[in-house]
Amino acid sequence: MSKIAAVTENAKQILDMNAFDMSKAELIKNELLRRRLNNSGALSVLFYQQPIEMQSASGVWMTSVEGTRYLDLYNNVPSVGHNHPVVVEAITQQLSQLNTNTRYLNQTVEKYLERIKSTLPESLDRIILCCTGSEANDLALRMMEKCTGKRGVIVTKSAYHGNTRAVTDVSPSASKTGHIAAHVRTVPAPGTENCNGDIHAEFIQRISAAIDNLEQSEYGFAGFLADSIFSSDGVYPEPAGMLASVLQLVHKRGGLYIADEVQPGFTRTGDAFWGFQRHGFEPDIVTMGKPMGNGYPMAGVAANDTLVKEFAQDVGYFNTFGGNTVAAAAGNAVLDVIRDDQLQANSKITGTYLLQQLKALASTDARIREVRGAGLYIGLELCSSNNSPDPALATALIEGLREKKILIGAAGPYGHILKVRPPLCLNQAEANLFVDALSDLLAR
Amino acid sequence: MSKIAAVTENAKQILDMNAFDMSKAELIKNELLRRRLNNSGALSVLFYQQPIEMQSASGVWMTSVEGTRYLDLYNNVPSVGHNHPVVVEAITQQLSQLNTNTRYLNQTVEKYLERIKSTLPESLDRIILCCTGSEANDLALRMMEKCTGKRGVIVTKSAYHGNTRAVTDVSPSASKTGHIAAHVRTVPAPGTENCNGDIHAEFIQRISAAIDNLEQSEYGFAGFLADSIFSSDGVYPEPAGMLASVLQLVHKRGGLYIADEVQPGFTRTGDAFWGFQRHGFEPDIVTMGKPMGNGYPMAGVAANDTLVKEFAQDVGYFNTFGGNTVAAAAGNAVLDVIRDDQLQANSKITGTYLLQQLKALASTDARIREVRGAGLYIGLELCSSNNSPDPALATALIEGLREKKILIGAAGPYGHILKVRPPLCLNQAEANLFVDALSDLLAR
Repeated sequence: MSKIAAVTENAKQILDMNAFDMSKAELIKNELLRRRLNNSGALSVLFYQQPIEMQSASGVWMTSVEGTRYLDLYNNVPSVGHNHPVVVEAITQQLSQLNTNTRYLNQTVEKYLERIKSTLPESLDRIILCCTGSEANDLALRMMEKCTGKRGVIVTKSAYHGNTRAVTDVSPSASKTGHIAAHVRTVPAPGTENCNGDIHAEFIQRISAAIDNLEQSEYGFAGFLADSIFSSDGVYPEPAGMLASVLQLVHKRGGLYIADEVQPGFTRTGDAFWGFQRHGFEPDIVTMGKPMGNGYPMAGVAANDTLVKEFAQDVGYFNTFGGNTVAAAAGNAVLDVIRDDQLQANSKITGTYLLQQLKALASTDARIREVRGAGLYIGLELCSSNNSPDPALATALIEGLREKKILIGAAGPYGHILKVRPPLCLNQAEANLFVDALSDLLAR
Repeated sequence: MSKIAAVTENAKQILDMNAFDMSKAELIKNELLRRRLNNSGALSVLFYQQPIEMQSASGVWMTSVEGTRYLDLYNNVPSVGHNHPVVVEAITQQLSQLNTNTRYLNQTVEKYLERIKSTLPESLDRIILCCTGSEANDLALRMMEKCTGKRGVIVTKSAYHGNTRAVTDVSPSASKTGHIAAHVRTVPAPGTENCNGDIHAEFIQRISAAIDNLEQSEYGFAGFLADSIFSSDGVYPEPAGMLASVLQLVHKRGGLYIADEVQPGFTRTGDAFWGFQRHGFEPDIVTMGKPMGNGYPMAGVAANDTLVKEFAQDVGYFNTFGGNTVAAAAGNAVLDVIRDDQLQANSKITGTYLLQQLKALASTDARIREVRGAGLYIGLELCSSNNSPDPALATALIEGLREKKILIGAAGPYGHILKVRPPLCLNQAEANLFVDALSDLLAR
């Protein structure tokens, strides 16, 4: 099975274009890779056919064991910069003092909860901390189901929301078979699949039809779940404002709106702290994760008191590691750095600059069908001459960029959309390194 | 609703006997508690009606913000001791060097996987790292279902295995309504509910009947899930060897055995590294969590290569924070400390000593119906004069021990079983503090 063939329409998020291909495992000379396959078997998910052994990192740079420095345009977890000293110091200090769970009171934890609340709409007045975006979305789905009494969920076609059983059901991109759970309906990402030109109106119309369909099923319509930048679908940030209309529709039809902010949150999109704020609306539930602790495992769910109360009626929920004192210390430090290093402004300014440079490049090269983005989340769609998706070009560029010491990945149903989401401290000179390298590779 | 009334047969694990009672929230004078309720609402799970504000910890001791030092007999997460300097140092060093995911290769991660494998039976040759015991059990259930083609699961009546939607289904103790999911069957913990005297034979017979029942349902029999010490049921370690027979039965009937080692693993039971090893058998899947990183969020699933391969056929699985380099560094340090501080021997020796002291106390006081334990996991069952469960006495003792500066919790369907599970570095002098305090309280 070739690497391209492996990337079916429904296996994108996990089988990234730069993924290691298990079927070629017999060719392996790398001893550490051999050990990895022996330790984790078929679930050894790795980047590149010759995976990189990483040794250290700092800011937007990662260094392999051979001493090669790579510009990191892939990793959005170390969002304020790899190993940021302020975050490392905060974790270290708290680890030496107290690492315990939220069944005891602690000032650091409440301070963090209040700071996160201050970034959110007032209606989202309760925060439940957990460990991963998957746990956050799992809990959010259960709240939605309990509070609507319905099960049917609408997501986008190549959505990825996490890896628990319940969340895998709403993550079509994790399926290798194209299977969609019976209570789930999918809609194309905004503006895709022969869109009639009016992205906004067509997206609303498609969701409306999916609601109709769910209402005619045994599941009913519980709600809509999306990340506002449609990351794994291939980055679709426009038109800003569209999702406010989706919220209106969802409410009118009796459902709830879960905004999955694991990717667009924490100033990633430049315009606001949260991705949904670009669209000017207040979701019913917000889930957050990846960049929250800059690599310390933490995540959370924000919801209204009434939703939380209703959910808690029938079932207990406690998360052992969720919101422990060290996670809270890490979270506080991340918020400090976002503020002190002015990362939202940098995401906006450097992101806009990079978007312009890439658009200029696209205007000289028809293979780049479109460049889309908000802040430091940019998608670069690659097509062949007949305007069809070109995952082969995406793979060639990902491998070529690796040779030029730049780390990047791909998204979208065919893996033909390069996704650029570096740590938020990327500067213009570093952005230029990428544009120049990409330009060189395309000129070959 | 009184605190006792709140503890129904099916709400034990979450509503611990020393839980804060939300219905008395209006009486709150504590400003930090008021903030907590305002930040997390109905999901503010706390210990004690007057929750403790913790400030620091070390070894088996925790210190409140008022400077009160508490002997910690509750927390099994900081298993090698609160803030153990070897673990803190390992995390700090790795945080400063590299905190990244397993899509890159890293020596520290593979070293950890190999060390964990070396503690397990050879048949469990693949390890998948994730972040929480809930994620581990969620993945294990999915593997079991995929590999058997069945859905029906058998657990014990007051089992607790975690908090995702799928895992809550197999955690009857998390339900406040007594609801049991349609594909789940429960059996009483070994030796409970009018046992005929032969604990071993009766447990097998009850599981066999549950298998019969599932086979007659639309779900079929997928497997059995249990922790070998039956923690949330109330601590039932005996007879050792019994679970080997359960495995034989489960296999004979076409199911798989998942050993949830989140509680009994990592030398907790003194006799072996894993709880199932006390029973002398090799489970099909082992899940692990809590003590793995001494508070750093990490967990894992061990299974055979074939199971992992079959699971991976249809679906991708990747865990962003799972097995990151810092988790691996924490995990390696925990294994170092268990070895260097000889914690398995201490668990055995101090645990046996404490068990004897508590049995001696029980022999003088009919209210202690039974003392059971293995290593540093001990249950103390409290009954009233007519031999019925006495949760009121449990609550009084928990509150009394708090006044004597000892932290402890309860388990079991009625919350009448004190559970003792301190960090594994507890010494005899500290064990004596508990025995003396308990003796004093009972003498009142």
